[in-house]
Amino acid sequence: MALIVHKYGGTSMGSTERIKNVARRVAKWHDAGYQIVVVPSAMSGETNRLLGLAKEITTEPDPRELDMLASTGEQVSVALLALALQSLGKQAVSYAGWQVPIVTDNAYNKARIQSIDDARVKKDLDAGRVVIITGFQGRDADGHITTLGRGGSDTSAVAVAAALKASECLIYTDVDGVYTTDPRVVSDARRLRTVTFEEMLEMASLGSKVLQIRSVEFAGNYRMPTRVLSSLTDPLMPLEEEANSGTLISFEEDTNMEQATITGIAFNRDEAKITVMGVPDKPGIAYQILGPVAEANIEVDMIIQNQSVEGKTDFTFTVPRGEYDKALKLIDGDVKAHLKAAHVMGDAKVSKVSVVGVGMRSHVGIASQMFRTLSEEGINIQMISTSEIKISVLIDEKYMELAVRALHKAFGLEKA
Amino acid sequence: MALIVHKYGGTSMGSTERIKNVARRVAKWHDAGYQIVVVPSAMSGETNRLLGLAKEITTEPDPRELDMLASTGEQVSVALLALALQSLGKQAVSYAGWQVPIVTDNAYNKARIQSIDDARVKKDLDAGRVVIITGFQGRDADGHITTLGRGGSDTSAVAVAAALKASECLIYTDVDGVYTTDPRVVSDARRLRTVTFEEMLEMASLGSKVLQIRSVEFAGNYRMPTRVLSSLTDPLMPLEEEANSGTLISFEEDTNMEQATITGIAFNRDEAKITVMGVPDKPGIAYQILGPVAEANIEVDMIIQNQSVEGKTDFTFTVPRGEYDKALKLIDGDVKAHLKAAHVMGDAKVSKVSVVGVGMRSHVGIASQMFRTLSEEGINIQMISTSEIKISVLIDEKYMELAVRALHKAFGLEKA
Repeated sequence: MALIVHKYGGTSMGSTERIKNVARRVAKWHDAGYQIVVVPSAMSGETNRLLGLAKEITTEPDPRELDMLASTGEQVSVALLALALQSLGKQAVSYAGWQVPIVTDNAYNKARIQSIDDARVKKDLDAGRVVIITGFQGRDADGHITTLGRGGSDTSAVAVAAALKASECLIYTDVDGVYTTDPRVVSDARRLRTVTFEEMLEMASLGSKVLQIRSVEFAGNYRMPTRVLSSLTDPLMPLEEEANSGTLISFEEDTNMEQATITGIAFNRDEAKITVMGVPDKPGIAYQILGPVAEANIEVDMIIQNQSVEGKTDFTFTVPRGEYDKALKLIDGDVKAHLKAAHVMGDAKVSKVSVVGVGMRSHVGIASQMFRTLSEEGINIQMISTSEIKISVLIDEKYMELAVRALHKAFGLEKA
Repeated sequence: MALIVHKYGGTSMGSTERIKNVARRVAKWHDAGYQIVVVPSAMSGETNRLLGLAKEITTEPDPRELDMLASTGEQVSVALLALALQSLGKQAVSYAGWQVPIVTDNAYNKARIQSIDDARVKKDLDAGRVVIITGFQGRDADGHITTLGRGGSDTSAVAVAAALKASECLIYTDVDGVYTTDPRVVSDARRLRTVTFEEMLEMASLGSKVLQIRSVEFAGNYRMPTRVLSSLTDPLMPLEEEANSGTLISFEEDTNMEQATITGIAFNRDEAKITVMGVPDKPGIAYQILGPVAEANIEVDMIIQNQSVEGKTDFTFTVPRGEYDKALKLIDGDVKAHLKAAHVMGDAKVSKVSVVGVGMRSHVGIASQMFRTLSEEGINIQMISTSEIKISVLIDEKYMELAVRALHKAFGLEKA
């Protein structure tokens, strides 16, 4: 009997009426003969309510106690969902992460899963029970409650699916899949029936907020087929139809490597760039600039160092826009003085646009097509960065939507 | 260094401001050199909110899932209190019952504590930490979360105090102690500085709702000195004064056995009586009448069987008023037919008034004083029941306040 893991987000669990709908959907799958494990998030708003209480008490809360506090949100969800399933005549049992147990390291608020014991859950499944496990949390080796950090329920679901060797992990969410680009920007953006793990990783890291990136990494590490699909459909829709809806992140070998197919256009609006001009071109420069930035826990994305002229070079990197002021202050102060750089400049109004697709690996034509399209629209490219499956460019943020639309059309993504 | 356990009810934990006040009080005790364990209830209203969600889903909730759900209330409390203590510069750590662990049987919703492991808590205390433990809950031998039932936080606190061999357990509540009777009925009712365990047990079981009766039993079994005191005082009031406020339930031998002192007048408004008339006076009658009542989980309080006349007798017992209809139906149906009883009658408008005091043990004068007082007020006594430390009478409920006031005065309870 195939085992399927369902994950439901906070919106799907947002009220007792919605929880009953989740129960109806789960019961339908169980009726069809599947073993089912459900990993729900906290009811929407609950985690914020709890953290708000903590904030009323202290502005510098202890991470351990925050995890004690926040983990209750999911425990409420699993109990309510078990009750809803039982009222439909199903045998159901809920577990907190520590009861399974889901063992993590002891990094409170951002713990990483180390192991999941499948014995207890398997026994329940074999007895015909639906098993419901709190997302987002586990316990460390000393029995302290830990949480995986925001969005960690996706990661929990994929990890549980991997530990139980499930045949598929279904992530029910408020979007109906992964699109060639954001439909709010390009109206004829098309839903992808499948994406490869690598493409999904790029799409997620480039700002398509469908799945938490760590859950995609987990899916990749364990080659767990993971499907993103809508929780807003009729819970009693035909199961066959539901099972093929959404977007499947697949681990099948690409059988059509020769054909250059582009998966989608990803973008990230909130970038900022910082340039250090006229620094001596000698070994250790990159470290001397980026070391202090990393120490301040600021994430650096694109990095470019130009060809030097007369022993001097320019060095540019991008950071999330929210960290721009902090990063600029660091660089324009100590770092600039230390390096005897001529000048530091920055721009907080830039965006990144990327063409993503496994099919582009061996096709240089993709890059030239991309650059020509942007050039025809009069959009200046400020920085370029490439990987095996994507080409990213940094542009003025005011051209971002235009660039996304033009590229979507140029690569014919609206056509299946 | 003396170890003290503090217990705070839901009202004391009702908001983040109040939790900060609890933290100030706890910190004051810690500053004075005591080791402190705190057992707080859920924030007031929280348990009802959670059970309300369950009720929206099903009218017949599974007890196990209710415990998963309801136990989150106290977990939120302990985390918030730990944060509040930390913001005062104290080292504090919170534990859910399962983390200590507090091990219970597996009777969900009304579990009984079997053992408490003191190792983890002792280690924290020795390291100078304030330890905060969820009230009301534990885990069974298989790691399922259990709750002790409503009011169970008092029991948790006393049990934790006993397990840790604390020198005193302080129950902070919204009354400032145990009174000679309810001050709402008798305005000059006087607060008792100490009561014996046996007296407290009678006062609690007779309707003085200051402490949950199981917590008093626990205190008795472990001879744990337990003090009921107010959480509404200034948290920074002098510690010496606070430590002697309220009412101490003591286990000192009574050194003054010869003097007949009455502790207080307890009462229970909500009684109902049922009389089975003209039943054959032969062995097994009591069982045949009360067996079905017990099977229906109806608690029976007073029981009286009159002297038989011509081989027939009358049998009367009392039940909580809320169970009256159910009990009467049982007795007036099958039981009456089976016993061939002449007649079944009942009265749901009766109340019980009791004179309580260890000092009355060997003093028949107490009973006659009680009966004379009621007689002088023209109050008819319907039933009488006695134990070593109390005399209870059942009277028409409309005379209850009058009886309580008259007895309070007759025994001079307003005088210290």
